[in-house]
Formats: sequence, C-alpha cells, structure tokens
Amino acid sequence: MTLTVRELDSQQRPVPDGHVQFADVGEYTFETGGYLPSVTLAFETWGTLNQDASNAVLLLHALTGDTHVAKGESNEPGWWDQLVGPGGIVDTNKYFVVAPNMIGSCYGSTGPASIAPDGRPWGSRFPFTTIRDSVNLELRLADDLGIKKFHAVVGGSMGGARALEWAVTAPERVAHCVVVAACAQSSAEQIAFAQAQTAAIRLDPNYRSGDYYDAASSPAAGLGIARRIAHVTYRSEPELETRFSRANQGEENPFGGASISHQRGRYAVESYLDHQADKLVDRFDANSYVVLTEALMSHDVGRSRGGVDAALASAADVKFLVAAVNSDRLYWPAQSEEIVKRVDQGDGVYTIDSPIGHDGFLTDIHQLGPVLNEHVFTARGDQERS
Amino acid sequence: MTLTVRELDSQQRPVPDGHVQFADVGEYTFETGGYLPSVTLAFETWGTLNQDASNAVLLLHALTGDTHVAKGESNEPGWWDQLVGPGGIVDTNKYFVVAPNMIGSCYGSTGPASIAPDGRPWGSRFPFTTIRDSVNLELRLADDLGIKKFHAVVGGSMGGARALEWAVTAPERVAHCVVVAACAQSSAEQIAFAQAQTAAIRLDPNYRSGDYYDAASSPAAGLGIARRIAHVTYRSEPELETRFSRANQGEENPFGGASISHQRGRYAVESYLDHQADKLVDRFDANSYVVLTEALMSHDVGRSRGGVDAALASAADVKFLVAAVNSDRLYWPAQSEEIVKRVDQGDGVYTIDSPIGHDGFLTDIHQLGPVLNEHVFTARGDQERS
Repeated sequence: MTLTVRELDSQQRPVPDGHVQFADVGEYTFETGGYLPSVTLAFETWGTLNQDASNAVLLLHALTGDTHVAKGESNEPGWWDQLVGPGGIVDTNKYFVVAPNMIGSCYGSTGPASIAPDGRPWGSRFPFTTIRDSVNLELRLADDLGIKKFHAVVGGSMGGARALEWAVTAPERVAHCVVVAACAQSSAEQIAFAQAQTAAIRLDPNYRSGDYYDAASSPAAGLGIARRIAHVTYRSEPELETRFSRANQGEENPFGGASISHQRGRYAVESYLDHQADKLVDRFDANSYVVLTEALMSHDVGRSRGGVDAALASAADVKFLVAAVNSDRLYWPAQSEEIVKRVDQGDGVYTIDSPIGHDGFLTDIHQLGPVLNEHVFTARGDQERS
Repeated sequence: MTLTVRELDSQQRPVPDGHVQFADVGEYTFETGGYLPSVTLAFETWGTLNQDASNAVLLLHALTGDTHVAKGESNEPGWWDQLVGPGGIVDTNKYFVVAPNMIGSCYGSTGPASIAPDGRPWGSRFPFTTIRDSVNLELRLADDLGIKKFHAVVGGSMGGARALEWAVTAPERVAHCVVVAACAQSSAEQIAFAQAQTAAIRLDPNYRSGDYYDAASSPAAGLGIARRIAHVTYRSEPELETRFSRANQGEENPFGGASISHQRGRYAVESYLDHQADKLVDRFDANSYVVLTEALMSHDVGRSRGGVDAALASAADVKFLVAAVNSDRLYWPAQSEEIVKRVDQGDGVYTIDSPIGHDGFLTDIHQLGPVLNEHVFTARGDQERS
C-alpha cells in the first residue's frame, strides 16, 4: 500500500527538498465518467510549510514535465531551476513549493501504465482526463498537506492551463495565479496540431490501441513523430533557421539515391528532431502522451461556466500575473492578452523576450524574476521594501 | 506506346484547351543517380502557340497539384481559374499556356505508381527526385513543343520553387519568372514539417516501404496524417480560429468517455482536417507524396552553384516578379524578400493580402492581376497602352 502524506509526515519529516513523495488521494470519478478505485499523486516539495500554512506555492508542469522543478537532495537539474531554489525568485528559504505530477502522466502519479486491481496496466482502460480532473485531485493533495490556500499557483504551457483552471475551480484557495505561455481555452490550431500527434501514435502498430505494455515493442515511432511535430511548434522559425538552416547532418547525404527505398541521409534539423524524439521516447509513455494531449485539447476554463468571461469573473479575488513569450507561435501572446483583458492586471501581459519560441517559458523564465518579485514573491526583497 | 506530342500535332491539332496530353520525353538519369528507361510527362494547354513561338507560358503546380490549371474543353474548375482563361489575367486568347505534371506525381506523368518494364509498379524503386530533375524533363517537353523561350514561367508554392529553378537552370529560355509564395531554398522549418509528414506515411503498416499497389489496403492513414500536418501549415492560426474556434463537430462530443479506448467525438477543426485528409487520400498517391515532398526538401537554387547569390546572378537577364501572402507562415514573406534582394525587382515583394495563410496563393491570386498585367502579361491592356 502506498504511504499517504500523513504517514510520511509522522515518520520522517522534514522531507528533503526535491524528493519524490506519493500521496494516496482516494478513489475518483472523472469529469466525463471514468472511474479509478484509487489514485496516487507523486509530488516533490522544497522548503518548509510555515505554521499558518500561508507560504505554500503550487508549481504545475507542462505536457511532458515531471515533479522535478528544481534541484534538491540531489544535484539533478530541474526544469525551472531558474525560478525555484534557496535565494531564488521563488525562494525556498521562505516558500514551501509543491510540484505534483498530473494524473495520467508517467512520473509517479496514477496513469495508463499503472497497475489496475486485476494486475494488468490500465492501458486502454484509462479514463479520459480533463484539466479539471487534475485540479480536483490536486485539491485533495492540498488538503492532505494542510494547505487551505496557496500563496501562488504557477505554471507554464499546460502548467499555465492547470494554474488558470485552479484559480477558477477554487478561487478561495489561490491568492496569486501565475500563467505563463498559456491560454484560457485551447484554440483550433492547438487542437489541430494535437490531433495529428495523437493520430501518429495511434497509427503505430505497436500502440495496439493502448495495450502494449506486455508486448515486445513499444510505439516509439508514433510517439517520436508526435514529439517531432510538437517540438517544431515549441520553437520559432527563425530559431530553427539560425541553428540549422538547410545544412546536412555531418557527412550524411540527404539527397537519397537511386530509389526511394534507399535510406537517404538527413538534414541537420532532421537529426535534431530525431534526437528530441529519441529523448522523449526514452522517458515518456505513449498512452500518457495521448491522455495529457487530449486533456489539453479539452482545456477551456469557460466550459459549463457560461464562457471565459464569466469563469474569470468568478476568480476576481485572485491576483493574476500573465506572461507570454513574444516569439511563441503555439500559445500566441494574443491568447495571453485575452486572459489579461478579463482579469485585473494593469500592466498588461508581461513579455519574455526570446527568439526561441514557446520553449522560452523554460529557457528564459528568469526574465520574469523582477515582476514576480515585485508582485508575487517577496523573497529577498521583503526587508528592502519594508 | 504513348503518343508523342509531335504525333498528336500531326493528327489532331488544335488540341482542345484543358485536355490532358502525354509527351514521351525519353530515358532519364536523375540528378542523384536513379534511372528510368522512359519518362512520360502529362500536360494540358490553353490557347495556341503563335508562329514565332513567343507567346508560351509555363505554369507549374504545387505539391499535390495537377495539370488542370483552368477550365477548358470541360467546365471542370481549375486550381488557377482566377489567373488563366480567355480574357483572363493570363489571356489564353493571346498566350499559349502549358501546364505539365511534375515527374514523380500521379496525374499522368511517370511516377511511383507507373508500370516498370517488368510489369510491376515502380513503387519503392522510383528514383529520388529533385526540383532540378523536374526542370530538366520539362525542358525536353518545351523542345518537343517547339518552344525555345517561354514568355513567362509561373508557379506558386512548390510551383514557385520549380519556376525559380527554371530561371536559374535555363535563363536563356525564360523571359519572365513569376514566383509566388515560395523560396530560394527550403528552410529548416519546412524540412522539419516535411520530415514528420514523410515519417507518418512510412509508419503506416500499409505503406509496405512503398510497395503497396498490389495490396488490399493503401497507406491512407499515414497519408492522411501527412495532409493534416501540411494543411495546418497552409492556413493561418487566425483563419482556423475564426472558422472553427473550439466548437464541437455537430452533435459529437470530443470529451471522450470512461476509457481512452472509447472513440471520442471530434472538434469541428478535427472534422475539417479529417475531410482535407480524406479528399487528398482519394486523389493522391502516398509514394508520390513522399517523392515530391523530398524533392521540395531538396530545393536549393544555390546548390552546386556557389550559393543562392551566384545562382540568381546567373539569371540576371530574367525579369522576376516575386510575390508573397502576408499571412503565410510556411513560406514566410521574408523568404520572398531574400529572393528580391538578389534580383532586379525595384518595387520589392508584391503582397497578396489575405488572412488565410499560405493557401492565399490559390484563393487570392487574382490580387496579382494588376501587377502581372503591368509587368508580365499585356493581354487586354496592349491596345490601351500603345
């Protein structure tokens, strides 16, 4: 049986920073009707929850992200080391940071690869999951941790969608909501690119409709194509052009040969995307990719709430900080502006100035340090300002 | 045996407008070493070649295009009816328009589905093809037709790449070169999107490495995914958002059900892309898609010519007219500017003003009427101006 957080608490507090923990959050009926008899959420924490539980920060990962936001007990790099750490923008000497793995993912939380009561992986039987499902389950985790209200809920990309959904689902439990490179509802284009990705996975004969865990081969090719499509959308055209132009990969000759059955060599950008695909295939589960991609397609804070306007109006007491990457062509800055129009953020959308594209929310998050420290986190600046 | 053009000439001139003809242009050794013992080029024509053969216009199609540029003997719509016809921008009462199907395609010219001397389709044995191969073969067609120099060579998208390659390969045979929504060399991003498309086709188990013609099923799923990816890049984000937003398709419910094996309904944009995919699958061959996509990836007028600058300098006697769609995010207007910088076009890039994206080169080509009539085609305007 999985240890619950409370049991961990009584046995071995303080838990080291950046250490994966597991919370049993109970049975769950999904928004669209699926059911799991028990759900585990994996999470990591940094810092210490203060006595009145007022210093908690919820950090939410993107599509293929994990719980390891920042370094901790080990020196293994995290994906937002620029943001989180002792003395950092989110100063873990002051704040208690919680980073859960989303339901359906494959980094410790219950997902399609998890074992069902019948001893087999859930596979194709895993429920259709929405962003709201993830919030509902993370609310239970917050209860378990004794956090009534987060000082801030923060996320980028799909993490930003999760953060926004948190603010609308439970505005009384969110003081600040930081939404980076995300949107209030997935757009036609985001759905379109996502469709091609999930279709590529499903086309892979090794996918076996999602029940491939016991098979000799996994749907690596399909997942790899999905990642290639996604990765192009994560980067800007000038970024790819500057790095690769149409160079050949090393000595490879991309000009093929006497017949199309002859394996041609690659352009450098193809090799780069092959590498991105291989890296993801090594670390991520194809079913989780499908589940979370379809969750992201479902993202719409206005759904069943009278639309985006009404939904965001219901979160009027939450202080928002919305930021976009100026070269993002997947989550266009205009989508961040659509959020800001509806919430009280006098300065407009904050801009991460990066030529890289959407992935600037990872590579250049440090640029938000000053505005985050002014408006949300007062880590090092408390004394100077008082 | 295929009738040659000369035989057609002697038997049945005048050929009706918009009637598919076939020219046997002989054996051919491809740029990268492949060989075909005989090549047929399908083409259509409109109008009549004048006595000194000075009124010929070569119109070159895009990736999945065909020879049917405009209406003719039948009233079947062509893909550039806006441009070509009696009294049109390219006035077929004055000009003799020739539109060949590119080598490797599936609209009458020799391609992977064509029958090899052993009685089987070429399939996986079809040679790797470059844009230069297409020009070399079309030069033979021009010879057969008795056209020493085209008044204009015109194309959009891949047709623009073909037109530019014509101007550089045989500048002495091109008076005007009209390049719409194209580039001097395929970019890293264009290669990247193309890689995902060809990979999706190759992943389809029905593709059988290209030898599927005798099989019960064809690689429709893989070709459909390729088309979905491509089609998103052919349209702009605002265009998709305006048309579809995140609406459901009719009564379908895209929110899935109790498990991911349950077929969920679709968003409207998914249904739209399914329709685009189905339409292409019904009319196009997967091998041809791979061959022409890889030809387009290979596009670089500067290759083995000392770079783009030197290549375009060698075409200094050709009069260029370069145009771009302002919302194009596949062939960015900046790529057209790169061409214009290197050729003598004082007015800069001409702009097709359309929110639709790349496909504006089809839907809004009429916008180029005035500049084309001023600089290239003097159809109805001859008398007024003299």
